Amino acid sequence: MSHKSRGINAERDLIHKFWSQGWAALRAAGSGSSKYPSPDIVASNNVRKLAIEAKLTTEKKKYFTGKEIQELIIFAQRFGAEAWTAIKFYHQPWYFLSTEDLEATKSSYGVTLPLAQRRGLTFEEIITL
Amino acid sequence: MSHKSRGINAERDLIHKFWSQGWAALRAAGSGSSKYPSPDIVASNNVRKLAIEAKLTTEKKKYFTGKEIQELIIFAQRFGAEAWTAIKFYHQPWYFLSTEDLEATKSSYGVTLPLAQRRGLTFEEIITL
Repeated sequence: MSHKSRGINAERDLIHKFWSQGWAALRAAGSGSSKYPSPDIVASNNVRKLAIEAKLTTEKKKYFTGKEIQELIIFAQRFGAEAWTAIKFYHQPWYFLSTEDLEATKSSYGVTLPLAQRRGLTFEEIITL
Repeated sequence: MSHKSRGINAERDLIHKFWSQGWAALRAAGSGSSKYPSPDIVASNNVRKLAIEAKLTTEKKKYFTGKEIQELIIFAQRFGAEAWTAIKFYHQPWYFLSTEDLEATKSSYGVTLPLAQRRGLTFEEIITL
């Protein structure tokens, strides 16, 4: 399976988790290629709306680009949603981190498994905030 | 250009209209093929959220299936959004109709240009409701 397919499958798994817990969720079309800022996923339980930039990795550290984070924030502000990043390391559950909790460098935002475990929320935690 | 491509282009045009008016909007991935209910477009100005099922046609009458309308309503209720259909006839502007304003039969919901003109809202009207 290609890297892109694995990423899409992982996003679908996240969509499934939201629906199974009574939320509505959808994947955005062509996120990353769209002319306008777009998160990978939007989810809502009618009250709270989440805009999510999601990444899957088999590496020890994963990076979000400055552009990805900036566009996530812009979209979330306009849409009226909470901005979240979601990261899934190999054989680990999803962790949700706010953009402030990522390790910022000049041009990107990094996250390691220890950082995700320390500062991140699990799926069960993010839906019950 | 294929029928599908024309439809996607028309949806992109609608996305563009929303962004140009200060709204955030995105197209859903694989709407229609997704396992879960999904509209074609979600849009928000931070306060109002719209879930939109959009159709383009060169015919005189266009139909939404019962399933499309039912799933639009389910998604909108769970997500906390207004449910709208959007229809664009050849050389006409977009018209937005509530599901109750479509012409319901046993298995589908039809809309003609005269019906859209009589009961529908234009883009300018729907963003200023």
